[in-house]
Order: sequence, then C-alpha cells, then structure tokens
Amino acid sequence: MKKLKRSARLVEMTQYLLSRPHHLIPLTTFASRYGAAKSSISEDLAIIKEVFEDEGTGELQTLAGAAGGVKYIPKVGQAQATQFIDELCEKLSQPDRILPGGYLYMSDLLGQPALMNEAGKMFATAFAETEIDCIMTVETKGIPLAYATGAELNLPVVLVRRDHKVTEGSAVSINYVSGSHKSLHTMTLSRRALKEKSRVLIVDDFMKAGGTIQGMVDLLSEFNAEVAGVGVLVESGEVDSGERLLQDYISLATLRAVDAKGKEISVEPGNYFTQK
Amino acid sequence: MKKLKRSARLVEMTQYLLSRPHHLIPLTTFASRYGAAKSSISEDLAIIKEVFEDEGTGELQTLAGAAGGVKYIPKVGQAQATQFIDELCEKLSQPDRILPGGYLYMSDLLGQPALMNEAGKMFATAFAETEIDCIMTVETKGIPLAYATGAELNLPVVLVRRDHKVTEGSAVSINYVSGSHKSLHTMTLSRRALKEKSRVLIVDDFMKAGGTIQGMVDLLSEFNAEVAGVGVLVESGEVDSGERLLQDYISLATLRAVDAKGKEISVEPGNYFTQK
Repeated sequence: MKKLKRSARLVEMTQYLLSRPHHLIPLTTFASRYGAAKSSISEDLAIIKEVFEDEGTGELQTLAGAAGGVKYIPKVGQAQATQFIDELCEKLSQPDRILPGGYLYMSDLLGQPALMNEAGKMFATAFAETEIDCIMTVETKGIPLAYATGAELNLPVVLVRRDHKVTEGSAVSINYVSGSHKSLHTMTLSRRALKEKSRVLIVDDFMKAGGTIQGMVDLLSEFNAEVAGVGVLVESGEVDSGERLLQDYISLATLRAVDAKGKEISVEPGNYFTQK
Repeated sequence: MKKLKRSARLVEMTQYLLSRPHHLIPLTTFASRYGAAKSSISEDLAIIKEVFEDEGTGELQTLAGAAGGVKYIPKVGQAQATQFIDELCEKLSQPDRILPGGYLYMSDLLGQPALMNEAGKMFATAFAETEIDCIMTVETKGIPLAYATGAELNLPVVLVRRDHKVTEGSAVSINYVSGSHKSLHTMTLSRRALKEKSRVLIVDDFMKAGGTIQGMVDLLSEFNAEVAGVGVLVESGEVDSGERLLQDYISLATLRAVDAKGKEISVEPGNYFTQK
C-alpha cells in the first residue's frame, strides 16, 4: 500500500485503467492500493470519467453492488473516428499505390502500429457491447489489426493458418473458394485454439467478394462456434453486392475504383457509421 | 483550447503521453492545449514523472531549449520484468504443451495481446537507447511481438513474407538454410518496404539455431540496411552455442529441454537481464 496525494493518485489510476481495457476493477482494489477511502476513489473516478468522455478516449462504466467496480471501455469519439477514416481514405487514394493488375499496395499503412491500434480501437468501439469470446483472423496481413482489436477488447486472438504447421498440434482444415478469382485454397486451425460454442469476431485487412471471410465462417462451424461480427479495414466496392458472400460486416474504407491507366484510386468511407 | 483544473489536466496529460511513446512533445503544445502557464505544465510533468518512475511505467525525458519538450519512454521496471519472465517460464513449462516431435505449443500464449504487448515493452526497454528506424519480422508468429515493440518504440514494422505476393509489388527474394533441419527456404521483402541504410531491429517468437534470423540479416544486406539488434521471445537452449549462427541477441526465455516421454519441459529465463 502506498499513500499518494490526489494528484499522483489520478495519474496512477489513469495509467492503471488505460492499461486494463474491459477489465472490471473493484473499487476496493483502488482503495487498498492507495490507502484511500472509497468516497475519495469515487471522486477521482468521476474526474477521470469526465476527461475520458470529453476527450473521446472512452467510457468509464461503474457497476454498483458487491460484484461491482469500474470498467474502462475504449471508445473512439465520433469526431476522431471521422477524422481517422478521412485520413485513411486520403492515404489509400495516393496514386503510387497502384500495382500491376490493379492491386493496391497497403503494406506501408499496415506496417504502422499506431494506425493499426487506432483501427483496432474503432472495431472495439463498434463491438463494445457485443458478446465476444475471441478475435479470429487468417494469416498474414490482418494480424496486427486483430491483435489491436483484441488488446482493446481484452480478448485473445485465434490465428488461422494457410497450411498445417508442426507447432500447432492436431488441426482442422477446410477448402474454400476465393470469390474474386474462384480459386481454391486451404485454411487450417489448431484443434486446441478454439473452444466449442465460442462467439468469434472475425477481423481482416481487406475484403473483396468475401470468400476468405466466408472460409473462416465455415471453419467456425467445424468447431461449433459462431460469428459474433466481422470487421474489415478496407472493402472493395468493385463487387456487386449480389456477388458478395457476406452482408453483415463493418468496414472503415471502401475502395470504389482503381484506374491503373489514369493512375487514379477512388476511396470512400466504409459503412462504419451506418452499420455500427 | 480548453481550461482544465489541475486534476483534470493531469488525467488528460497522462493519457496524452501514454498514447504517444517516444514522441517529443514541446511544452508549448501542452501550454496552449490547456491555456496554462509553462511553469504549471512543468509542475504537472514532475508529478507524472514521479508516478511513472515509481510504478515502473516508464521515464519522462525532458529536453531543454528551443527544440525541447518532453518524451515518454516506456520502460518495464526491474521487478515487473522479473515477474513477467518468471510467469512466462512457468506457462511455457506446462507439460500439455508438448507436441509430437518434441515441438512446443505456444499459440495460446502468442494469442494473448496483453502478453505480447508486455513482451514488446520489454524489447522497447532493452532497445530504448538504440538508434533504430524500423522493426522487422518474418511471417507469421512473430508478428504480434514485432507490432507491440514497434508501438512502444514509435517505429514502423516491415514484414518479410515466405513467398512473393501480388500485393507487394517488386520484391527481393533470398534462400536461407533453416539451421536445425538444414532445409532450404525462401523469404521475400517488397522493394518499397525498406529504405536503404535503415537500422533494423529484428524480432521473432522463437530461435533455435538462428537460421531464420540469419536469413533476415542476409536480406537486410540486399537493401544495404543493417541490424540494430535482435530480440526473441524464446530461444532454444538445446543448441550448442557453437552451432548458433547468431551470438548477439536478447531473449526473454530459454527452452532448456523437452522430455516428451517424461512429459517435462524445462524453461529458464533468457539472457534479458545479462545482455540488456
């Protein structure tokens, strides 16, 4: 136990809460940690709550009763979310991203931890009230996004592999059709990676027709698990919605068109604000 | 500009600093942000600094002069680092991790974002004073560790692929020999992913003879880039140090022996404290 002045206590409590998103912390934890009365702790929390909400950092939920306490729920405020999505769209529209075949180079953006963490916080905001047991993604490029989302929601990440590795133990494999190319692929998940009846949030970096994500959905049913939600960073709007295998998802940006000849990329905000 | 009371200002500054590790923030940013005198801001920072250092959260470095300001350097304190490594070793020693062939199942641990973030903070602590331009890892399992390290050091992550993808543009490929099996593999890095002369911190989840990491070192020389350091979560101590391709690295845990028959795994702390 350490006796701290209110000013130091506020700093300590702020960092304690920020490093424990979606953890229920009993008030007695703080009271005994700082040798302070519960009433003082409640006053401190009221100050922190107000700052977090004003800043768009997140919410502090207070649960009353014997099993009660306080929980920090990371949330991106509306203004910040709009700014983030606008900046993302602008970056994605840079013409030097166009690769042969009309593909888009995104690895520089996906390689920025702060950007991935912010996108993860957006998904954590959208799914804050959804009952979820774990986050799932398939290797490779969606991994940082999945971990960022998992960190903000205090949930583990389950990683689907393209092939079966010796370090995964016994595994379940399925074949799936990648919608845009109609080509056949395999994905594999370790038997012990996922409990039966888990509720799973699927996260990925890019979705075209949705074949890869549909593959993960099919894999889930092999584990008697179910989809709690789907979040993608960028969706391709070049697909007719009739062709899309999946209708219920959240996207941060929509790639509308890539004109390789005219060197123009058209990107719009995704359905984040309308679907959330 | 918003006028805040000192108590609210402390909360706001704490979350502002924590979300911007290794960023230099001029005092005038805070002064104009809160409409406060620089002297008040300095007092606030002194309070935050003391709490961070007492807690083992990190350091606040103050740089004087016109180009000066304050920088939050995330650091894991000695006591926390010891506790983290002890817990990691204990988890790695659980006998049900043994897979056919004497491999170790680690995906459940690698799937915990909070654990990866803490390990990343350990690497960020060890390399806080090293001049580094980016973090590099090869797919797949080292990715969360690399991003966690990158987030704490405010550095981008460069991802080496096993094969050449259409979404990466032109790329450089090399072959490398995986030391423990003497088998030949390929790794590939997009041309535009890495600037010439970059100083690179290599991060991975596991190192046996070091062939994979040596492969990344060889790849770096193709880009006229250099190794600034190497950090691995677990090293295998089953390799003679003579057989090891790489001598200069930091590890958090050492896998000493896997006895598949007796169902015993022996894990010791890595060289983190002796090498750092």
